[in-house]
Amino acid sequence: MLKSLTRLSTIACAQAPAAPSVLARSFHATVRDCQHQKTYSSDDVPAVSGVPHLLTDNDLSPKQLADIIQSACQFKHQAKVLGKPSGAPLAGKTMALMFSKRSTRTRVATETAVTYLGGHAMFLGSQDIQLGVNESLLDTSKVVSSMVDGIMARVGAHSEIETLAKYSTVPIINALSDLYHPTQILADLMTLHELYTPKGSEPHLTSPTTTLKDRRLAWVGDGNNILHSLMLQLPKVGMHITMATPKGYEPNPHILQQAQRNAVAAGTELGVYNDPDDAIEGADVIVTDTWISMGQEEEKKQRVKAFEGYKITTELIEKSGAKSDWKFLHCLPRKQEEVTDDVFYSPRSHVFQEAENRKWTILACINQLLVKKGF
Amino acid sequence: MLKSLTRLSTIACAQAPAAPSVLARSFHATVRDCQHQKTYSSDDVPAVSGVPHLLTDNDLSPKQLADIIQSACQFKHQAKVLGKPSGAPLAGKTMALMFSKRSTRTRVATETAVTYLGGHAMFLGSQDIQLGVNESLLDTSKVVSSMVDGIMARVGAHSEIETLAKYSTVPIINALSDLYHPTQILADLMTLHELYTPKGSEPHLTSPTTTLKDRRLAWVGDGNNILHSLMLQLPKVGMHITMATPKGYEPNPHILQQAQRNAVAAGTELGVYNDPDDAIEGADVIVTDTWISMGQEEEKKQRVKAFEGYKITTELIEKSGAKSDWKFLHCLPRKQEEVTDDVFYSPRSHVFQEAENRKWTILACINQLLVKKGF
Amino acid sequence: MLKSLTRLSTIACAQAPAAPSVLARSFHATVRDCQHQKTYSSDDVPAVSGVPHLLTDNDLSPKQLADIIQSACQFKHQAKVLGKPSGAPLAGKTMALMFSKRSTRTRVATETAVTYLGGHAMFLGSQDIQLGVNESLLDTSKVVSSMVDGIMARVGAHSEIETLAKYSTVPIINALSDLYHPTQILADLMTLHELYTPKGSEPHLTSPTTTLKDRRLAWVGDGNNILHSLMLQLPKVGMHITMATPKGYEPNPHILQQAQRNAVAAGTELGVYNDPDDAIEGADVIVTDTWISMGQEEEKKQRVKAFEGYKITTELIEKSGAKSDWKFLHCLPRKQEEVTDDVFYSPRSHVFQEAENRKWTILACINQLLVKKGF
Repeated sequence: MLKSLTRLSTIACAQAPAAPSVLARSFHATVRDCQHQKTYSSDDVPAVSGVPHLLTDNDLSPKQLADIIQSACQFKHQAKVLGKPSGAPLAGKTMALMFSKRSTRTRVATETAVTYLGGHAMFLGSQDIQLGVNESLLDTSKVVSSMVDGIMARVGAHSEIETLAKYSTVPIINALSDLYHPTQILADLMTLHELYTPKGSEPHLTSPTTTLKDRRLAWVGDGNNILHSLMLQLPKVGMHITMATPKGYEPNPHILQQAQRNAVAAGTELGVYNDPDDAIEGADVIVTDTWISMGQEEEKKQRVKAFEGYKITTELIEKSGAKSDWKFLHCLPRKQEEVTDDVFYSPRSHVFQEAENRKWTILACINQLLVKKGF
Repeated sequence: MLKSLTRLSTIACAQAPAAPSVLARSFHATVRDCQHQKTYSSDDVPAVSGVPHLLTDNDLSPKQLADIIQSACQFKHQAKVLGKPSGAPLAGKTMALMFSKRSTRTRVATETAVTYLGGHAMFLGSQDIQLGVNESLLDTSKVVSSMVDGIMARVGAHSEIETLAKYSTVPIINALSDLYHPTQILADLMTLHELYTPKGSEPHLTSPTTTLKDRRLAWVGDGNNILHSLMLQLPKVGMHITMATPKGYEPNPHILQQAQRNAVAAGTELGVYNDPDDAIEGADVIVTDTWISMGQEEEKKQRVKAFEGYKITTELIEKSGAKSDWKFLHCLPRKQEEVTDDVFYSPRSHVFQEAENRKWTILACINQLLVKKGF
Repeated sequence: MLKSLTRLSTIACAQAPAAPSVLARSFHATVRDCQHQKTYSSDDVPAVSGVPHLLTDNDLSPKQLADIIQSACQFKHQAKVLGKPSGAPLAGKTMALMFSKRSTRTRVATETAVTYLGGHAMFLGSQDIQLGVNESLLDTSKVVSSMVDGIMARVGAHSEIETLAKYSTVPIINALSDLYHPTQILADLMTLHELYTPKGSEPHLTSPTTTLKDRRLAWVGDGNNILHSLMLQLPKVGMHITMATPKGYEPNPHILQQAQRNAVAAGTELGVYNDPDDAIEGADVIVTDTWISMGQEEEKKQRVKAFEGYKITTELIEKSGAKSDWKFLHCLPRKQEEVTDDVFYSPRSHVFQEAENRKWTILACINQLLVKKGF
């Protein structure tokens, strides 16, 4: 399109201006126009390079992943156990929270994390800023990033956050896109690391590669962004993943291929099923998520039918042959459909610890990107 | 309900699984299931104990009430008169403002108070968080309280804030419920304490029990949460209360009984009337509030009729025999129906001082609960 | 109205109360009423004096304008080039952002500026506070200003911000009214000052009166608040302004008269046209804005027709005889109608630098009014 525009402009330049009354003035203009003949479009705006982001789970190497989990444990220990302040490395600095959907957990986690680091979390909800509606994502990215020190973005299509990152002069953290939810999986892994740290040891002094190695996680539910992020990330800490999704609700095939490559590289197992029993057999951890996310309320009936047999119950878990000390995670908010109270409020469920760990893992990411300037 | 669930589960346990193909695996599962036979529900989530809250006016003893008013006066003196900073005891800490209805005064008071103490006020309006809609109050309370250092909650039904407090690991302050508005009454009492502090003395060096003793406050208006809080609190500083509400708009009878007990214990008078004249006679202070609160717009016609004769005018006050130096308070926002400009903008009206004192009293409460860890 | 109310009240006072049963009590009341016979209304609330504000561009003298631009450059140098903190002069202090329309740029600029100065920016959107709806502007101004340290207000009618300022005890900055947009023009002038600062010099060490003198700015577009502010402000730094607006979309005649007085006083030119060619001829800088602002979507068809020929294109600029090194500004957000990508994304367009400078100029204003207590 740039080329055709340029050609059109060159043609215009060869034609003499029509109206005689403005001839003299237009003549000079035409000469000048031809001298610096270049027609610009948004494609000419250069991408910004060298800025570190966290857009997908694969932005983290296995070592960076292990380090960030341990860093999160260190912050939790420092702030919660020791009650120590942070030294306010973000004093005077602002992190924008650009959220096109509301989110209690991610928002509270981010605001409290930024506050602990001494900075200001500026929440911009869909009432405040509508990405791509009132101006282009390019313009918004250049404008907002020129004034803030970091951006936490919750978008619809993952391509939106890629566009934001292309033009942003400050780090961007993916707070959820339709394809990935990297900060959620960091909290899941931190929680499992804490749970599997042996008695007498402390999570912040222990490497997650030792506590998580060869653990088996079973996903029973929708083939959504949480599953995508889990399947990409688990191999890097040596964990196996098995998943059961109803037919028609499988994960994105391209991301599944990438996950399989990650599993091969790490020597871990990745099992894909349509029957919860198959996924749960031998699992250390059972994980699900709501089947009916925000914006999917219309499909509710159809989904309730498709997910028949997918409700997590103690009976399902035990008859499917999970490990005897199985544990349960859920990223919340929880609806009644996908899991019984029986499991959700039992001592095997660690969902509230998992929710709290959103704060510490997001804190570690912000510290890494905004204070230490990279993973 | 817990019991019946347990029974059902035991029955299921006794039955052999139906499908032969999964028999072997299910057998083990059933054995394990029976071994640790316990079925969980939300009733099993233990209440959190030992966390101090301010949910109703009766959470404060007479001494605690007097102390908090004087502490508010000290903060006002320190910040406004001396222009001194606070030492930022809440640096790095976040207070969540969970407001199911909007509120200019309470919000501005709380945000500026938290800021003065060096902390971050995170406003979560009904656009951001809908209590009890997307997840249970139990879950929200556990999640939010695990990440923040305190919660200011404006709810609908008072039972909502009780549920929040039951599971919260951090202090909760009632910023308004359908039954109580404790922080408003603290501002009212602080204002009267300032007004009645003798010349030559200073409010922050004077006990409110000396300035407020035997003053008589008349409420003319709706039997609402403000009246409930006033009638519970005034006896504790030695004040008498008379109230006039139209028939059908009387205060909650259970709270009235508690208020009568408070009055008996303090030896103060409590007069209940349906005629403004009776309430105003002999009053030092006349107080009203809007008759048509947010959400009651539909009942407006009916209420305007019911409250005929309840509009506060100079004429009404003086013919009813208020003290010659009567004063007027109103918690704002004010509508035209309940009070004339004649009273509202006169030098006898202290409504703006009362509004500003929302800040200093809320500041004192936050300091007490979050910094000093209790009243 | 005050007078007639007083008269009515006096009559009432002369009449004996009707009902005999309340005679004794009413008699005394009547006597007292007559003694301090004064009827109050909102007109009796005294205006607050001595508080510095930035409501219109004419609140700044030429020297104050030049100083604030240079101060903004100094802050940009200190924060961005040197990476130095501010000393947090606003620690513990809150600036309210009362925005009746949303605004990404102004909001982000203000929140990041307040944060850099160590203060708290409290955003109150139309969801949070509806100016003049739930209570009078007088009441809101007195209440909010009693608790905060400064107010940034984005209003509809300019009279609203005048009322706020009349009763506010803290400085108010106009973040946009239907008549003026003073902080936008400060960013425009700062940007031009940076662009015209000679190589080897630095903007924060150079006076804008030397770099901007005799530059010619052409406005092509709507006769709106941005144009009003430009025409008032440019003469003070020695700049000429030419403007083309379609018939029926001319600027406010009273503000135009004031601008002409400013131009006469400064010895600068002010040209008013209905043809873009006339305005652009000889211009150093071409500026436009969207023709269809928020709330004008209904008029869109009519406006698109009226502004035919007003779209800024390279062709239009060059045939009209702009200076050979012409530059382009736009306050954003940009719509497709008013300017081609060809211009908007070219190296001659400095719109993103202009957007970033919203932060530094607003920061300088806040520092001046809240820290230095005046311009």
